[in-house]
Amino acid sequence: MEKTTEKYLAALKKDLARMRIYAHALGILNFDFETCAPRDAKENEGDTISFFSNEYFKIATSKRMKEATVYLNAHKDELCELDRVLVCYLYDDYKKTKNVPPKTQLRWSKLFNKAYIDWYNAKQKADFSLFEESLSNVLEISKEDVSLREDALPDFYDNLLNDCEKGMLTRDLDAFFSELKEGLIGLISKIGASKHVIRTDFLSRKVPIYKQEQFSNYLLELNGYDMNKGYLTTTEHPFTSNISENDARVTTHYYEDMFLSNVYSVIHEGGHAIFMQNEPREDFEHFINDHVTNGMHESVSRFYENVIGRSEAYIHLIYPKLRELFSEELGDVSERELYEAVNVVTPSLIRTEADEVTYGLHIVIRYEMEKMICSGEISIKDVPKKWNELYKQYLFVEPKNDSEGVLQDVHWSGNFGYFPSYALGNAYNAMYLKKIKSDMDFEGAIRRGDFGAINAWMRENVFRYANVKEPKDWLKTLTGRSLTAKDFIEYLTDKYSKIYNF
Amino acid sequence: MEKTTEKYLAALKKDLARMRIYAHALGILNFDFETCAPRDAKENEGDTISFFSNEYFKIATSKRMKEATVYLNAHKDELCELDRVLVCYLYDDYKKTKNVPPKTQLRWSKLFNKAYIDWYNAKQKADFSLFEESLSNVLEISKEDVSLREDALPDFYDNLLNDCEKGMLTRDLDAFFSELKEGLIGLISKIGASKHVIRTDFLSRKVPIYKQEQFSNYLLELNGYDMNKGYLTTTEHPFTSNISENDARVTTHYYEDMFLSNVYSVIHEGGHAIFMQNEPREDFEHFINDHVTNGMHESVSRFYENVIGRSEAYIHLIYPKLRELFSEELGDVSERELYEAVNVVTPSLIRTEADEVTYGLHIVIRYEMEKMICSGEISIKDVPKKWNELYKQYLFVEPKNDSEGVLQDVHWSGNFGYFPSYALGNAYNAMYLKKIKSDMDFEGAIRRGDFGAINAWMRENVFRYANVKEPKDWLKTLTGRSLTAKDFIEYLTDKYSKIYNF
Repeated sequence: MEKTTEKYLAALKKDLARMRIYAHALGILNFDFETCAPRDAKENEGDTISFFSNEYFKIATSKRMKEATVYLNAHKDELCELDRVLVCYLYDDYKKTKNVPPKTQLRWSKLFNKAYIDWYNAKQKADFSLFEESLSNVLEISKEDVSLREDALPDFYDNLLNDCEKGMLTRDLDAFFSELKEGLIGLISKIGASKHVIRTDFLSRKVPIYKQEQFSNYLLELNGYDMNKGYLTTTEHPFTSNISENDARVTTHYYEDMFLSNVYSVIHEGGHAIFMQNEPREDFEHFINDHVTNGMHESVSRFYENVIGRSEAYIHLIYPKLRELFSEELGDVSERELYEAVNVVTPSLIRTEADEVTYGLHIVIRYEMEKMICSGEISIKDVPKKWNELYKQYLFVEPKNDSEGVLQDVHWSGNFGYFPSYALGNAYNAMYLKKIKSDMDFEGAIRRGDFGAINAWMRENVFRYANVKEPKDWLKTLTGRSLTAKDFIEYLTDKYSKIYNF
Repeated sequence: MEKTTEKYLAALKKDLARMRIYAHALGILNFDFETCAPRDAKENEGDTISFFSNEYFKIATSKRMKEATVYLNAHKDELCELDRVLVCYLYDDYKKTKNVPPKTQLRWSKLFNKAYIDWYNAKQKADFSLFEESLSNVLEISKEDVSLREDALPDFYDNLLNDCEKGMLTRDLDAFFSELKEGLIGLISKIGASKHVIRTDFLSRKVPIYKQEQFSNYLLELNGYDMNKGYLTTTEHPFTSNISENDARVTTHYYEDMFLSNVYSVIHEGGHAIFMQNEPREDFEHFINDHVTNGMHESVSRFYENVIGRSEAYIHLIYPKLRELFSEELGDVSERELYEAVNVVTPSLIRTEADEVTYGLHIVIRYEMEKMICSGEISIKDVPKKWNELYKQYLFVEPKNDSEGVLQDVHWSGNFGYFPSYALGNAYNAMYLKKIKSDMDFEGAIRRGDFGAINAWMRENVFRYANVKEPKDWLKTLTGRSLTAKDFIEYLTDKYSKIYNF
């Protein structure tokens, strides 16, 4: 390595190490804000978080960082592989932001804050018109942002997709979503025609929270979440927080009369956390940890939540503990009844409450909406009407108001292009499900609770290259194939035909 | 105000505002470290805390801060009263540290870290010899520290006492502790001679933790702790944390077979937190909040814990809730039996587990020990022997080993002079107990649960000047009298003669 390259690399890493300390503190501050901070202290704590975010931003955008990034990008061939990956990430960001003047960034940031507040109020009042102007602003900012980029992609929406799930562009997603839509609609009509009745009366029985808490800890440890490198607590909306190398925290929400809500939140968030706890150590050393795309991350959390967590084998595994803890509340529920109940399919209005089958159509709707919004095919004021039409057409349900319709998700107060990664997650994991099944006795491992073997396979295959490869390459390396919705549809068909007898 | 004074004051406050943001983050980081941080993340989180402590320290000891402090101290008469108090605090610190070279500070800091580790290991192994060298070092550092101060007091130990409880020096404490010792020894011998037997069998019954948690929340809210400005969680050792203006957090520890431990931890820590939640708002504006001495703070926490919490009236108040929550576990315990059990007196070895009466003698022993150590009357190696002698002489108990003897408390791994403030706390609150009784129907207010009235009185009388006055002035303003142990002995005698029938 040339002397100058060495010097720049050392300077870069020194700044990254400093940024990591700020990020660590910010991780804890944000976690505290969501979990512990009392109501009256939140404003002040928000200010403290902004202060340190700004300090972080100053280092990240310093002249020294920029200079090092540009120099090292031009001398990539002198770097080792992981340092090269790091420089690519930094240079990508650099190209996106180099032409954005600070005052433009400030204006955007204010408009985004307003958009969030407007969305929140509009949702509370179930009135889209209160969010309309801000939604237009978000679209305009995205256009301005893309127009300032070096090497922007020709299609506007592709840039936004590329930001969220690198390399997965409209041409890939059009094919994918059309395959997915067709498959799901066919499947849902077969399920709808089935005479089989699933028992669900016990799902709303009161289950004391302290017992649910014990069950959460049991599930996390069972699945291989390392409690010495994590922490479980409660928040309004469950999430996973990647605080530091040895600290991946999980939150959940307990409802006394909806015990399954916590069960699958914990397994889902636990999946994200198991991924974080098993990132290669060398990725941390080279500052490229936590670069996994949302699609990859969702593929893993949904793998644990659905493919494993809603399988017959897993229900068989956890049923004895459930009977032991909840003997009073669920003593009359058989293993089969529980298995069917965690898999009941009902077309509904709210994405986050959707079952494994109908979920994909919620994403199809959002993808089609985003394309029409970004291309200008529909105007912002027509968004709710179109939304309601698509829900009626694909899911046979109609929102009573905007709050349970177009305003249900927060995402569009920040950006477009994020939703597809949820559906990609399901497609990715259905593809590597085939691989794990050919490599080991997957069902047997679940039935035995052998998460040592399952997680070792995930580490070697799924987690290993997630920080260094783009989704397409990663998928190819992992499965030898390209993106398809077929495996997912096959997986669903096989599973649900046995539940609904068709 | 002169232009230059104005300029310095503005610069000072700008730095203090910045320090407050760092202190806020450090408060949250430290709280997280004690409550949430997983085992394997602690080392890294400790490093992050050190990093930000150092950033804080840099601002606090900057040339600009020092210059402003010295200038403003010389122009105090131009300042408003609260700014004058602020400058006095800063100038006091300045005088203490101005002659300490950074490398000396670093050497001390390393020796203190070693002292903590040595103490911890010595306690684990119940072997004082492992701590002996470090205890000598702590004494030597204190001597070096005092020798470098501008305006040091002539007597060495007085400086250390003055650091902890300003103005309360050997001449005050000698008189106080001799009065206290005599009173307590007389009282304990009367209690020892009593034939009255207190029922205690139910104190070790198993009480589920989730029920204890409900009781904790009930107690805190009952006593007037504002849950919108605080948070309750669990740690190994209970503490209170003053995170920010609207954020005073409390921790406790639950033992299934010792339910009273949590009850009085919560009331004690809740007392500290109620004090924090009721500091005058103007003290925050002038950066003099949180300057209350330890003696004042303990006076308040013990007022809630003992004077209120262990009173007949309070037991009467909480008994119905206790019976409701713990009907299965404590259904056969009468109100009177509960009252007597929370006040059982038994001379014992461990300070933190001592009852209200014998507690004072634990402090007497430590005060006498510290005086002998600081004057050189006993050498470090003779400390355990002397300790055991005093415990036998005053409390008729003998430690089986150093772990339950001289090594039980962490304090001496950091400094001398702190222990007296615990006893002062009891003396202070017994003095203002007289005042509150003459101002209002105190017992009646407790029986009715009228903490609105009690806390309003505390705010107006006890909390109001705590940040701006030294203990002696504060006590004079509040009670019209000077420090005495008499009120405390009277309070104990009155209460315990009725329990033990003498």
